[in-house]
Amino acid sequence: MPIRYTEDEIIARVFAPIAGPAALGLKDDAALLAPTAESTVATVDVLVAGVHFFPDDPPALIAKKALRVNLSDLAAKGAEPVGFLLSLALPADWTNDWLEAFAAGLAEDARAYAIPLIGGDTTATPGPLTISITALGRTPGFVPRTGAKPGDAIYVSGTIGDAALGLALRRDPALAARLSPQARGYLLDRYLLPRPRLDLVPLLRAHASAAMDVSDGLAGDLAKLCRASRVSAVVEAPLVPLSPAALEASLAPGFFEAAISGGDDYEILFTADANWTPPQDVFRIGAIIAGTAPPQFRDATKKPINLAKMSFSHF
Amino acid sequence: MPIRYTEDEIIARVFAPIAGPAALGLKDDAALLAPTAESTVATVDVLVAGVHFFPDDPPALIAKKALRVNLSDLAAKGAEPVGFLLSLALPADWTNDWLEAFAAGLAEDARAYAIPLIGGDTTATPGPLTISITALGRTPGFVPRTGAKPGDAIYVSGTIGDAALGLALRRDPALAARLSPQARGYLLDRYLLPRPRLDLVPLLRAHASAAMDVSDGLAGDLAKLCRASRVSAVVEAPLVPLSPAALEASLAPGFFEAAISGGDDYEILFTADANWTPPQDVFRIGAIIAGTAPPQFRDATKKPINLAKMSFSHF
Repeated sequence: MPIRYTEDEIIARVFAPIAGPAALGLKDDAALLAPTAESTVATVDVLVAGVHFFPDDPPALIAKKALRVNLSDLAAKGAEPVGFLLSLALPADWTNDWLEAFAAGLAEDARAYAIPLIGGDTTATPGPLTISITALGRTPGFVPRTGAKPGDAIYVSGTIGDAALGLALRRDPALAARLSPQARGYLLDRYLLPRPRLDLVPLLRAHASAAMDVSDGLAGDLAKLCRASRVSAVVEAPLVPLSPAALEASLAPGFFEAAISGGDDYEILFTADANWTPPQDVFRIGAIIAGTAPPQFRDATKKPINLAKMSFSHF
Repeated sequence: MPIRYTEDEIIARVFAPIAGPAALGLKDDAALLAPTAESTVATVDVLVAGVHFFPDDPPALIAKKALRVNLSDLAAKGAEPVGFLLSLALPADWTNDWLEAFAAGLAEDARAYAIPLIGGDTTATPGPLTISITALGRTPGFVPRTGAKPGDAIYVSGTIGDAALGLALRRDPALAARLSPQARGYLLDRYLLPRPRLDLVPLLRAHASAAMDVSDGLAGDLAKLCRASRVSAVVEAPLVPLSPAALEASLAPGFFEAAISGGDDYEILFTADANWTPPQDVFRIGAIIAGTAPPQFRDATKKPINLAKMSFSHF
């Protein structure tokens, strides 16, 4: 067994450098955030090795993913990041090297997204690495899931299905062999590393009637947004944005269903006025209609597409 | 395998009833807290089955412990509870019955301590049950660890060492056999179920120069408070408050050291003016002095007590 940091050393050497002023040097019982005129937004996500990522993924990327899935939730609500709390259960075989690489990835993203560490708890576990991050944000204009109205248009940012394809490639070498190295690399990266759309925060505050991040598949997530808003929806499948890499894989059987029901897109799904013109990289894919039926996806001939599976679940 | 709730059912049936308005029905990406003039206090604790509690402990008590250890941190900072986020990794053999009992315990405490659930994430794990709770509070007057000054007196609430003895009883039937049934029951309960001292919040805001909760043993925690405040301390061992049940065990070898270095007291350690008269159930145990030496514990003859072990660690 190599020499390993004590709990106090982990706090002082590994995590204190990532901490913001609210963390009080990670030397107190709790973080302290000064009052502001804005609302506070809070979200939590837990990631388990072997469930949400592969245990041998690079530790820096695991850390970034754990933080970014929370940043994606803040972005969807029109919130700017304020700080995050990290709870970390380390498996029996953790090493200082692993932990330092994990913290280095976390530090990079904490700087890049202006979200300092404000608190945490580290423990040992006889089980797999388990990471739970709670992110706090602030906004003057929270964008709920409940505001979609009949007549609104449905928009989605970026491209859909890349991460699900990246996961499929890791599991199926035959599929991977059919793609170009560029497409393979792109899709694998999209699975490893979400890109939280904090760049869309001003747009969402200004224009979105309802929004959520796409984390469990576009189809299932749109169904959730519709239920929350008590509306239904029609989506034109040919309008769902796909990356060039995904298009390379698009002839595989079941491709479209996999793309819209797979997890980990971390793009933003939102509704806004139908007369609004979205910027580049945001796409209008359908319309909100009255009713309580599940959202319908239609093909190029306006025929409904039957979806066996709506969303991804870790259960 | 019995029929089990889906992820959506867990949210809607099991956890939504515990949720407060800020949770938005647990149907959104994040919780929304309105702005206030007070500072926000945030703390997180992670508990792992087999590390922080026994896997076969009653689920309601596991839930209560996970919430209460966080409430204890809020209390130590002079903060009133606002809400909590729950991240739950369920082991392969979880059942609806177990989950409902867990949620019932959580609901009872959420009501009792006026701290609604405001968000969460539930997942499956191939490892042990892992619970991470982030608690948010508010205070007009945060009590830091850093404010202790030479000349301040040191106070502690309640009694010390009961939970550590409770844990020892579970591990050592011979020790258990030497105690009365009443003492046994009392100590076992003190290990199972912390009693966060939110009743002390007004007192701490009004009088404490520094405070923390006693979770890793009085000796080690006082050392942390002293380091944070850059002071030293002298504690009169005979003044450390012990319960009648602990006194029954006090003739066992190593008793006092175990009592002040064992974990899970969840009482409040604080400093205040030496002329202040504490209320019932709060005890003056020593004095803050200048210097950087570790705190010294003295016996009835003022002779220093040598402590081999200062605090409890899960590492």
